[in-house]
Amino acid sequence: MGGGIKVHGLPISTATMRVLATLYEKGLDFEIVPVDMKAGAHKQEPLISLNPFGQIPALLDGDLTLFESRAITEYIAEEYSDKGEKLLCQGCKKLKATTKVWLQVEGQQFDPIASKLAFERVFKGMLGMTTDPAAVEDLEAKLVKVLDIYEARLSKSPFLAGDCFTLADLHHLPIIYYLMGTDSKKLFESRPKVNEWIKNITARPAWVKVLHLQKQ
Amino acid sequence: MGGGIKVHGLPISTATMRVLATLYEKGLDFEIVPVDMKAGAHKQEPLISLNPFGQIPALLDGDLTLFESRAITEYIAEEYSDKGEKLLCQGCKKLKATTKVWLQVEGQQFDPIASKLAFERVFKGMLGMTTDPAAVEDLEAKLVKVLDIYEARLSKSPFLAGDCFTLADLHHLPIIYYLMGTDSKKLFESRPKVNEWIKNITARPAWVKVLHLQKQ
Ligand SMILES: N[C@@H](CCC(=O)N[C@@H](CS)C(=O)NCC(=O)O)C(=O)O
Ligand SMILES: N[C@@H](CCC(=O)N[C@@H](CS)C(=O)NCC(=O)O)C(=O)O
Repeated sequence: MGGGIKVHGLPISTATMRVLATLYEKGLDFEIVPVDMKAGAHKQEPLISLNPFGQIPALLDGDLTLFESRAITEYIAEEYSDKGEKLLCQGCKKLKATTKVWLQVEGQQFDPIASKLAFERVFKGMLGMTTDPAAVEDLEAKLVKVLDIYEARLSKSPFLAGDCFTLADLHHLPIIYYLMGTDSKKLFESRPKVNEWIKNITARPAWVKVLHLQKQ
Repeated sequence: MGGGIKVHGLPISTATMRVLATLYEKGLDFEIVPVDMKAGAHKQEPLISLNPFGQIPALLDGDLTLFESRAITEYIAEEYSDKGEKLLCQGCKKLKATTKVWLQVEGQQFDPIASKLAFERVFKGMLGMTTDPAAVEDLEAKLVKVLDIYEARLSKSPFLAGDCFTLADLHHLPIIYYLMGTDSKKLFESRPKVNEWIKNITARPAWVKVLHLQKQ
């Protein structure tokens, strides 16, 4: 095996975008190996051997194979801790522990709601399916409860874990990006601290590069 | 503040059990501060200041306050890395990265299905609600797909991340424990490697101590 970093995935996939943003934040070289999902390539070799769940992304780094976007980003942040942005505050016990908390908040509290909402509002359309207005209403009602907690948190510090940008912020970018292109954006924009945070994190050069990949 | 480790929670709560198992694996002293959920204490002070989502558990360790069970267990495993069981293989790059993958598999692939199934089969009964057979059928159909992947994985190594027991295994214990007390246990028992793994991890002295707490 050997060789550099390879990402099997697609730049429109939210989970892949999480990994791409991390690689750009770190300033690492990498290659994207596109997966033809329309042809079902994610359920076939070679992908199914890289990720038994048959999902993108998967990462190759030398002889290491990883899947699950959030495991990949944490691996990159730790393995290449001396490059680019810090992303995890390894040195500071309290900030490191608080980053873990907000990483879990994203995965356990935000994503289960927000990714279903993005599915209804964005991806169903792409797949020729119809948005279910009752599901949207229910998901938005749940999301505002989470966003109220974010608003309170972001009134205390500019980023979720504290004074610096970490993976806990970055993990939110893909779904927030897609939802900001829908009517759900009002939920974010009407909360001043959340709105400021989104402006701040979506303006990061690494994120702009990820969006640029979508246009190629 | 100061003082030792305090867990705000209840030993019947799956998320609390995850933290208690970790503390016992590490051989740490701690105090449980019970939260009267029937009286809604989790939505009031002091808990709501410890966890803005109003859920248990929350952990105090000196002047550090943490919530989200999986963030707490990772904090304990790293902060007390020199005590008791290793739980994360900090030294070995490959095993550490693979542990991260299977931690995310638990949180992203297993738990979203298995905890809803446990809610249908166990917790609804405790709350005087009625199990929905259609939901059970749907969730079981989804769970077997995940368990087939676990069976293949556990055919290669005795634990999810490799040769040693890690947090990735431990995080499964609470939900598996409850499901093994229901008809869903056939899904686990019919898969030999999964069945062996469950026998192995549920026999750990730390886990037996958690179950003992439920009987007090
Ligand atoms: N929890 C996984 C989710 C991965 C995921 O859902 N990927 C989507 C594309 S964004 C996919 O491959 N879907 C196809 C499928 O699930 O069959 C991660 O974070 O990597
Ligand atoms: N993702 C959270 C889940 C915590 C959770 O759901 N706790 C339950 C008890 S097991 C709870 O407090 N439920 C009350 C509520 O959600 O209002 C964690 O892992 O800590």
